[in-house]
Amino acid sequence: VLAKKIVVLPGDGIGPEVCQEAVKVLQAVAEKYNHSFTFRSALLGACAIESTGQPLPEDTLAACEWADAVLLGAIGDPKYDQDPAAKVRPEQGLLGLRKALGLYANIRPVTAYDTLLEHSPLKPERISGADILIYRELTGGSYFGEKGRDSSLAYDTCTYTREEITRIAHLAFKAAESRHGLLTLVDKANVMETSRLWREVVQQIAIEYPKVEVDYLYVDNAAMQLILNPRQFDVILTENMFGDILSDEASVIGGSIGLLPSASVGAHTALFEPVHGSYPQAKGKGIANPIAAILSAAMLLEYFELKEEAKAVRDAVQKAISSNILTQELNQTSPYTTEQVGTFIAYTV
Amino acid sequence: VLAKKIVVLPGDGIGPEVCQEAVKVLQAVAEKYNHSFTFRSALLGACAIESTGQPLPEDTLAACEWADAVLLGAIGDPKYDQDPAAKVRPEQGLLGLRKALGLYANIRPVTAYDTLLEHSPLKPERISGADILIYRELTGGSYFGEKGRDSSLAYDTCTYTREEITRIAHLAFKAAESRHGLLTLVDKANVMETSRLWREVVQQIAIEYPKVEVDYLYVDNAAMQLILNPRQFDVILTENMFGDILSDEASVIGGSIGLLPSASVGAHTALFEPVHGSYPQAKGKGIANPIAAILSAAMLLEYFELKEEAKAVRDAVQKAISSNILTQELNQTSPYTTEQVGTFIAYTV
Ligand SMILES: CC(C)[C@H](C(=O)O)[C@@H](O)C(=O)O
Ligand SMILES: CC(C)[C@H](C(=O)O)[C@@H](O)C(=O)O
Repeated sequence: VLAKKIVVLPGDGIGPEVCQEAVKVLQAVAEKYNHSFTFRSALLGACAIESTGQPLPEDTLAACEWADAVLLGAIGDPKYDQDPAAKVRPEQGLLGLRKALGLYANIRPVTAYDTLLEHSPLKPERISGADILIYRELTGGSYFGEKGRDSSLAYDTCTYTREEITRIAHLAFKAAESRHGLLTLVDKANVMETSRLWREVVQQIAIEYPKVEVDYLYVDNAAMQLILNPRQFDVILTENMFGDILSDEASVIGGSIGLLPSASVGAHTALFEPVHGSYPQAKGKGIANPIAAILSAAMLLEYFELKEEAKAVRDAVQKAISSNILTQELNQTSPYTTEQVGTFIAYTV
Repeated sequence: VLAKKIVVLPGDGIGPEVCQEAVKVLQAVAEKYNHSFTFRSALLGACAIESTGQPLPEDTLAACEWADAVLLGAIGDPKYDQDPAAKVRPEQGLLGLRKALGLYANIRPVTAYDTLLEHSPLKPERISGADILIYRELTGGSYFGEKGRDSSLAYDTCTYTREEITRIAHLAFKAAESRHGLLTLVDKANVMETSRLWREVVQQIAIEYPKVEVDYLYVDNAAMQLILNPRQFDVILTENMFGDILSDEASVIGGSIGLLPSASVGAHTALFEPVHGSYPQAKGKGIANPIAAILSAAMLLEYFELKEEAKAVRDAVQKAISSNILTQELNQTSPYTTEQVGTFIAYTV
């Protein structure tokens, strides 16, 4: 019996609904494969602000530190978006958690599912077979650099150390080695000093991975190439802000952001969350796609080295997709609810 | 007789070829409408480094300051890309020129031509009718902020003053007023202090433009929305780096980056250049699309307040497109050369 502690942070908007389905699937896995998963729930984001005044309460951080892995729904509430300068905002909870847990690498697979190509804004022949793994640095850059204001100006500092670049680069190289052997570093080395450091460090590390071919692409060109020819990519490595932009952009390839999972890993624990946000307009309507959360749970199983279990979840998702057991954005004619999709996948596992 | 001085900076790669066609069109306009355009050519970029050691020779800057407008081809040579840390690089010429001429606003129209929809990687029904005008701040942000290195780290500073935001915001609001009345500010106000200043300033200026609706979009979401639904945008306003990324990304909408012009305006003079780069692989083959350079020349005419002339050029381009008098990337079966396309447009004006 494998015993693991999982903290669930349902968060805001559709977060709780999709988390519930992911937990349902994890429970089905535990039962079928005879593991013992202990779940504990905690507050993060707008819901945490509402009940404690803090976007990342101390209890939540303690629970995450206690856990073997964290499953997150989504955070964010439009009422805070009106005033991005407000002292307390949901995003601070997520950013604070990433920093506190040392989650320095955000990993996002982007897959074009053949039966869903019609839902993509891109032409099917451009995207069929696309399969990209994005490594986004998550605890450095202008997200966490010194920033400030005086009466006439504002500034943000983007900082990177060799050490910060090195640790995520090794992860990305290893991933490329186990995939198609191509790593693309995306930067703006013709303008940014930090980008030049990224290139330098990646060039050095490349020597240790002779089987991996390394490509360098400026971020403006990468934003274009992702749409023009997504199949040219295997593993993409990039800094925090460029990764934020490119991974959201890449989400259009698959046809629905509701399909895309992510993992954030670091020194101690790891966090798994769907790429989509809290999507407050859909809250409580049963129309949110739980697949991104469920595939995030599959990444969590992989992290526990439960390969077979992770594969079972992915196969079940594939079955839901090919059987058209999908929520309304992917199945207009006979849509299933969030719960129905989750239950189907849990039973199929 | 309107007399104007135009400095031409052919630059590198395909720059000289496309510039030649744009000048041909400007000469045809001068003849037909009885204006007197004086052309003077100067060095910028890799070609300038080769013959003077400097990417932006003093003579070139002096010529640009003397001119009423500048027409630029493209700069950049792959031999400098291998080493982005090299002391002298072609990009420095362009960045230095922008700064020296105070070209604080880069304006890029993105249009989906109906007869060319098939060439876009996006589905025709998503892009038909898309018509976006991007205002990218061009002399601030992390491009020109303090940057540096020590043995273990590198940093770039993104700085914006109220003044820098204010002057480009007015241009963008005026453009929105004369178009469809929607301005979208793209920022990352949930993370960046500079973005919060952008929001604050734009919110204040908005009061002066009651007919313009203002929308705020985070840059990650904008990167997604540009592909999901480009028709939702009218005028986009954003800072330097986000503008670099988003405007290149948006270039895929039209089906060919070879169609997209840009204008960079400032206090004194203005510079016009195609969005595409120096594309060295195509150099000297007669396959480069001159339309982006020619449409840049049309923007130059507009800047001289020669509305009718600018329209004549645009109509001639439209005629070339609808008659399929196009270079190979848009006309595989019976491609025309760079020169043939330019000559057709010059004769049609
Ligand atoms: C909510 C926001 C701060 C966050 C980010 O920019 O990292 C989000 O966009 C993401 O990608 O997880
Ligand atoms: C060449 C490079 C420095 C430049 C930029 O980033 O501004 C280019 O990409 C552009 O958009 O004109």
